[in-house]
Amino acid sequence: MNLKIAVLAGDGIGPEVILQAKKVLYAVGSVYNHEFVFEDALMGAVAIDKTGNPLPEQTLNLCLNTDAVLFGAIGDPKYDNNPDAKVRPEQGLLRLRKELGLFANIRPIKPYKSLLDASPLKREYIEGTDFTIFRELTGGVYFGEKKLNEAGTLASDLCEYSEEEIARIAHLAFKSAQNRRNKVTLVDKANVLETSRLWRKVVKNVSAAYPDVALDFLFVDNAAMQIILNPKQFDVILTENLFGDILSDEASVITGSIGLLASASLGKTNALFEPIHGSYPQAAGKNIANPIASILSAALLLEHFGLFEEAKNVYEGVKKSIEYQVVTIDLNPGSTFGTNEVGEFVSNFI
Amino acid sequence: MNLKIAVLAGDGIGPEVILQAKKVLYAVGSVYNHEFVFEDALMGAVAIDKTGNPLPEQTLNLCLNTDAVLFGAIGDPKYDNNPDAKVRPEQGLLRLRKELGLFANIRPIKPYKSLLDASPLKREYIEGTDFTIFRELTGGVYFGEKKLNEAGTLASDLCEYSEEEIARIAHLAFKSAQNRRNKVTLVDKANVLETSRLWRKVVKNVSAAYPDVALDFLFVDNAAMQIILNPKQFDVILTENLFGDILSDEASVITGSIGLLASASLGKTNALFEPIHGSYPQAAGKNIANPIASILSAALLLEHFGLFEEAKNVYEGVKKSIEYQVVTIDLNPGSTFGTNEVGEFVSNFI
Ligand SMILES: CC(C)[C@H](C(=O)O)[C@@H](O)C(=O)O
Ligand SMILES: CC(C)[C@H](C(=O)O)[C@@H](O)C(=O)O
Repeated sequence: MNLKIAVLAGDGIGPEVILQAKKVLYAVGSVYNHEFVFEDALMGAVAIDKTGNPLPEQTLNLCLNTDAVLFGAIGDPKYDNNPDAKVRPEQGLLRLRKELGLFANIRPIKPYKSLLDASPLKREYIEGTDFTIFRELTGGVYFGEKKLNEAGTLASDLCEYSEEEIARIAHLAFKSAQNRRNKVTLVDKANVLETSRLWRKVVKNVSAAYPDVALDFLFVDNAAMQIILNPKQFDVILTENLFGDILSDEASVITGSIGLLASASLGKTNALFEPIHGSYPQAAGKNIANPIASILSAALLLEHFGLFEEAKNVYEGVKKSIEYQVVTIDLNPGSTFGTNEVGEFVSNFI
Repeated sequence: MNLKIAVLAGDGIGPEVILQAKKVLYAVGSVYNHEFVFEDALMGAVAIDKTGNPLPEQTLNLCLNTDAVLFGAIGDPKYDNNPDAKVRPEQGLLRLRKELGLFANIRPIKPYKSLLDASPLKREYIEGTDFTIFRELTGGVYFGEKKLNEAGTLASDLCEYSEEEIARIAHLAFKSAQNRRNKVTLVDKANVLETSRLWRKVVKNVSAAYPDVALDFLFVDNAAMQIILNPKQFDVILTENLFGDILSDEASVITGSIGLLASASLGKTNALFEPIHGSYPQAAGKNIANPIASILSAALLLEHFGLFEEAKNVYEGVKKSIEYQVVTIDLNPGSTFGTNEVGEFVSNFI
């Protein structure tokens, strides 16, 4: 198979971890005889520094015309603490999600057996956990109108959802549940929010087409608690953009490290693969960032193109690296292995 | 001391747990020679059933003219799953918060020594945790304009914050930190939301008046993770309405049960005390609901009026009930004690 892959390494640890994902994909390509062509492009703080624009047109055009996008991380503290900054790194990612129509962000949560003791949660609470979060990615408060009055004393963000935006991701969630344990949990705040009530209505309607899938509802505050108290109860969690952002970071604690979690962002015609972790600037350039989330994002990319055996091989390599403790310090504080060594291990395994 | 206390038992388990809080306050009154006069009033689903209004004017007037309000719980599934319901129980609570100007909701998180093993989190992660969440309670997306188009296909909620709304709770948070470990963590999503950027700006400005208090910032997704990974890092968490709702339910897992967590909602002139748990309708009427959150809410009420020794006695009684395992099944699945027995134990202790 020939694949043209746009690579947006981004900020902070992005470049280091993406490098390992590329290594692994090269290994897969040479073992299985695929041609993966990578094209690097700028996005995020690094793009602002070089072009003034967090998503240069060139990058956007490239992403619109490739088979898939592999993305690293975004964000730089120098923008976070400057409320007056007009241009921010995150705008690049948000605009890219929107322009590529990546409405569904899929985040699998399943701890590795050999890491069951690495979580702050007791083993008996997490053993057997296996759920996937379907996070809506191009709507809600992320994309609604933002306002700040002239005096800078009154700000607002609009959270908006349409029936269509809800229905299309709901269908994906139900279809996924049919291949899993046949349960969808909608997380919302329908006792307070109008948008949540629309979510409930639309998702109920969509569920009629999937009689073999059970649907239940949870308020987001309760969900934030249940994910820790009893994560095994979940199969597919379906939720809006901001709630999905919060709950998936939270759920990472089940796996032992956010450095393990990959995600696929899918649209009608485009697909992007990214770790769920951020740019972790404190770790940048130190060869200590965990590349596994990036490597697993590459595996999700392979699966997306039907390369299941190849993906399985990557999963296997990651599993082995964890079993043999060839891991970064987030998983083993005393480890002498770094970002690069973990990437080497997995690519040599292929 | 003479206190007139409005009692809104509300829905679900509300009446049962409130009864225990009243019992304890009666005991305190008789031992310490205070006169607590309770006036019961309707709010929530029960008020809708009886009057059509989740917050009848009579209730509101009572609350405006008492020294304090003791509140149980609110919510009924028959409204949650009916997106077309025009009147909902929660509207009563939200309107009450607004009318009483209860802008600060204060939620202490500190596990009991004897319950350190009751949490899904490993003991070493939670031992020593002691933080307080300052949740803004009368602004944000809870109170912004809500819209649904005629066709019922497009919904929106507006999240709005003014400088003044942010500054007044920030001052409370910083003052509280001065009596604690001198640290405030602002939780927001400033990389995406305009309101969060205003929070950052205003809170930074406010912090200048408290040079002895350190201020740091955390994105809400990261905060949801850090509360589990390293809860000891927090002293005072300051945040907006919705984030505070989610994070405080989440943080309850540290204590072993949400049935233990009380909160104080304060305004310029009014004060309301409530458990952070919901109406838990599945448990209603079964004598299994944990009354401790309600009893501790009563203790917060006592403290609010300067009755520190009395409050201490209540805390002591609660601590003993936990040590002697006179607890409900959420804390000990095999327990033969119920709501009523726990309330009896604590009030007899006074
Ligand atoms: C960087 C940020 C804008 C982003 C988000 O909030 O979506 C990140 O947290 C994520 O989850 O992908
Ligand atoms: C019942 C509901 C409206 C309420 C809220 O979201 O504020 C509750 O969850 C709480 O935390 O007090």
